[in-house]
Parts: sequence; C-alpha cells; structure tokens
Amino acid sequence: MKTLQQMGEHAAIAALTANLKAVGDDCAVLPMNETHDMVLTSDPLIENVHFTSETTPEQIGHKAICRVLSDFAAMGAEPQYLLVNVVAPPEQNFQTLEKIYAEFSNLWKKYGAEVVGGDLAQGPVLELHVFGVGRVPKGTALLRSGAQPGDLIYVTGPLGGAQQSGKQFTFEPRLDWGNALRESGVVTSMMDISDGLATDLRHILKASGVGAELDGSLIPCNGTLEQALYDGEDFELLFTAPPVATFPSLGTDCICIGRVTGDAERLLLDGAPLAAKAFEHFKS
Amino acid sequence: MKTLQQMGEHAAIAALTANLKAVGDDCAVLPMNETHDMVLTSDPLIENVHFTSETTPEQIGHKAICRVLSDFAAMGAEPQYLLVNVVAPPEQNFQTLEKIYAEFSNLWKKYGAEVVGGDLAQGPVLELHVFGVGRVPKGTALLRSGAQPGDLIYVTGPLGGAQQSGKQFTFEPRLDWGNALRESGVVTSMMDISDGLATDLRHILKASGVGAELDGSLIPCNGTLEQALYDGEDFELLFTAPPVATFPSLGTDCICIGRVTGDAERLLLDGAPLAAKAFEHFKS
Repeated sequence: MKTLQQMGEHAAIAALTANLKAVGDDCAVLPMNETHDMVLTSDPLIENVHFTSETTPEQIGHKAICRVLSDFAAMGAEPQYLLVNVVAPPEQNFQTLEKIYAEFSNLWKKYGAEVVGGDLAQGPVLELHVFGVGRVPKGTALLRSGAQPGDLIYVTGPLGGAQQSGKQFTFEPRLDWGNALRESGVVTSMMDISDGLATDLRHILKASGVGAELDGSLIPCNGTLEQALYDGEDFELLFTAPPVATFPSLGTDCICIGRVTGDAERLLLDGAPLAAKAFEHFKS
Repeated sequence: MKTLQQMGEHAAIAALTANLKAVGDDCAVLPMNETHDMVLTSDPLIENVHFTSETTPEQIGHKAICRVLSDFAAMGAEPQYLLVNVVAPPEQNFQTLEKIYAEFSNLWKKYGAEVVGGDLAQGPVLELHVFGVGRVPKGTALLRSGAQPGDLIYVTGPLGGAQQSGKQFTFEPRLDWGNALRESGVVTSMMDISDGLATDLRHILKASGVGAELDGSLIPCNGTLEQALYDGEDFELLFTAPPVATFPSLGTDCICIGRVTGDAERLLLDGAPLAAKAFEHFKS
C-alpha cells in the first residue's frame, strides 16, 4: 500500500480526482447567471509548511487570502466572497488570530473580497483554509488549455527568491493584470506561478498539448536563473498570446520569456531539455 | 494574553467576526441571479477531534460531506458544488484517501453535490475541509432570526447518542425536509442540531430575541433526555412555526417539543432554567 510520500502531490491529486469533474485550472468555472460564470477556488495555509513560528500574523493573513486572490487573477476573474476555516491548538494566543482577522479586513478594503463565513476548530497546528467565490463574464475565463504553437510566453514580473526576500508574504495578487489581460481578448492561456516557472509552465503545456522553448536571457530574475525557474511562490501571472498581440501596460510591461512549440509537453531552456524539480508536497 | 482555551470557541468566533459581515446562520446568503440567492458554508473534519483512527474512510468521507449538506438543509437550500482541502501527513496511506473520494462520488450521485476542486497539502494529521456552494429561491432562505413568541418548536427526528450509535458517521442530511419546510412557507426559523439541542436552540433564541419552554416528555430521545439535550451531532433540523401550521409529511412527522416565549434568551425545560453545557471546541 502506497503512502502520499511515495506518490507525491501531483500523482495523488490526479488519481483522486480522476472520477470527478475536470480539475486542473486555478479555479473551477461553473454557470452562475445570464451574464457571468462563477469561479471557485480554495487554498490551505499550514504552520511549518507554508509559514513558520517566525511569520507575523499580518503576513499569515496576507498570504492566506492573497494566494486565493492570485487564483482569481489567473482566470481573469473578480473575487467576491471568502470563507475561512481556522484550525488552532487550545494554547493558541488569541491576539494572533485577531491580528490575522484585522489583515482580512485590510485586504477586503483593498481588493473587495469579503470574508462572509467560516469555522474555528481545534487541531495540532495553526492552519487557515480560505475558500473563494468570484465571477467572470460568461465564457471568458482564461484557462490553461488554450496555448497554441507559435504563441509567445509572458510573465508579469521578476521570478525567484520569494522565500528569502519575504515576497511570499507580501506579494500583490495580480488582479488588475488578470482583468486587463482577459479584456484584451488576445491571451490564449494563463495561470499563476506558485510552484515555480519550470513546474507551472508544464501544466500549461500538458493542458494545451504543446511544448515550449524558454530563453534564459529573457527571464526576469530576483537572484539566479535557477531560482527563477524553481523557487516558486512568485504569484506572478504566466500566460501565452500570439506574437502580434499588444497588451495593456499597467505601469510596467509584460515580459516575453519564450515561445510555444508544437512539440507536445517538451520544455526546452536555451535549446536543452529542462529538468523538473520544483517543490512538491509530500515528496522528500 | 488570552488563549483559545481560555476564551472558548463561541466567544472567539464572536470576537473575530465582529468587524466582518454578519456571520451566524448555518450558511451565508448572498446575491446570485434574478431568481436565486447563493448560499455558502464550510466545515472542517479533523482527526482526533471529529473522528479517530478507528473511523473507516467511508465514514470520514460521509461525515465531511454530509455536515456541509446538513448546513444547506438548515437553510432550505439546494447544494450545488463542493471543494475539498485535504491535509495529511507524508506517511498517510493513499488507499484511505481513495476510499474517502469514492464516498464523495457516492454522495454526489445521491445528493447532487459535486466535488469540483480543492487542494492537497501536508500537515500533522488527516483533515478534510469541505466548502459548499448552493442556492435557494431569492429571499426564501430560512434563518435563525425569525422565531416569534407563540410559535411552536419542532425537530425532524430523535436526538442523542449519535457518538455511541455511530449516527454521527451515517446520518442522512435532511435536504428533503429542509426543502419541503421552506416551500411550506410557514417556518419562521431553522437550523441543524450539531452541538446539541440545548446549545443550538439558544442560537435561535439569541438571533430572534425570544425565549423558549421545552417539554421534556415530548423530546424524542435516542437514550436519555440528558443525551438528547447535550450530545449533539444529531444533524436533525430544529425549527419554529406558528401553532396553526401544517407540514409536509415525508414518511414521518415533525415532532413538537415546546414553544417560543417573549422572555428574551430564557430557556426553560419543564419550567426550570436549562443549563448550557454542550461540547465546545477549546473549552476544557
């Protein structure tokens, strides 16, 4: 009998969801009303996995909510409502929770996503499970599956070093970019970078049945190229669009880092195959 | 600085949500489209708190999903979509998760609530966090706040002993009852019994600004009256309606157990004040 450690996160999720509705984009997209689709997503934030005892309550609250908001950005969607399940041990300092909830209020004012419910239960470590409901104009959600050979590949900002720099706790979810890119009508696929460029781009390649060639000299790096490829938790948007596309400029430009090929699921960096070795839950 | 153990679950939730949108019913009710409101809820299921190492995967899956479905029943709402965050240690046996997900599929076929997403992350014990989205015809969701002096108090089935009998893992969420009671148009307040009749009825009294007199001889018991009042995890519906009301009969009848009074938040059993002592997370 296999353990999760032997399987790894991605194989386990694939096996568990094989009989359920297609799962794979940053959010599930479902019918809502005449004008909009509903988008749903959830993300856990767990002590000693996603943060440590050194992390401040404001940082914990920020990361918990903004990971979910980044999922909405990745679909070009607008977040509306959030529910939060808090798990904590009996000895949990209550003031920490108050500060986390104060950050929820700050983020509500900033991004319009309101916490409307949730639960509080006892468990061994502090955890926040954030569930989000949002919307997107009907049929316009940006998926991972639309990349075409010949498209160019873009990111919305520099990658790498988010753990060391603290960006993992302070990043801005790219909601404005997501919305503007969806409205531009030229983007063929999109997702956010949480597990690292090398891993996340593979999700687009698999969903779209295409390959990609990255140009290392074009990839914007916070630190080394290795870090930009594998560190993760950048929460920048990664997307594809035809070469002739022009994008909105939100104070800065989208950065082209390579192109889509017809060579299914083959990922090259400067002409050589790129190794997959990003962080994966359970894999030791 | 206070800990959660010193505050208790209910005081902690009240303090944390004081600055957020009104939280207090089994589900949050929000605008969705011209004909329906959206209802949202979430429930955690945590090893050594809500189940033990003796609990079977089928029971774990059943309780995780059906607690959420019971929340929908309590609003008279229809469940639509579910997301599940699974937390597990690296040594988690994968077959257990497969059996839990097989139960999700069984429940989808039975109740129409489909798992459309979620996440899998590493943590110290097995946990399932289930988030649900449902709908209810606009303006018809049954809240806790509508009970009126003179109303009678009803439950949909016998109470008590759900931990010992195993009903906590096999109960039927009262979706048919919830829907029929909402359609009857006579119910003034409703919720489901998760923490025990004595505790949960107080939520209705507080939300409605009323009191109640229970008749111990009328309360349907699995075991002793004490158990019916305090055990919890019955997941029967508790509701109020005017004395002249007639209800749909779904193979069995609703059981009248007392009446609503104008004596704000005063709860009597056979004429004497009833002690509050149900299970509460964190309280030792």
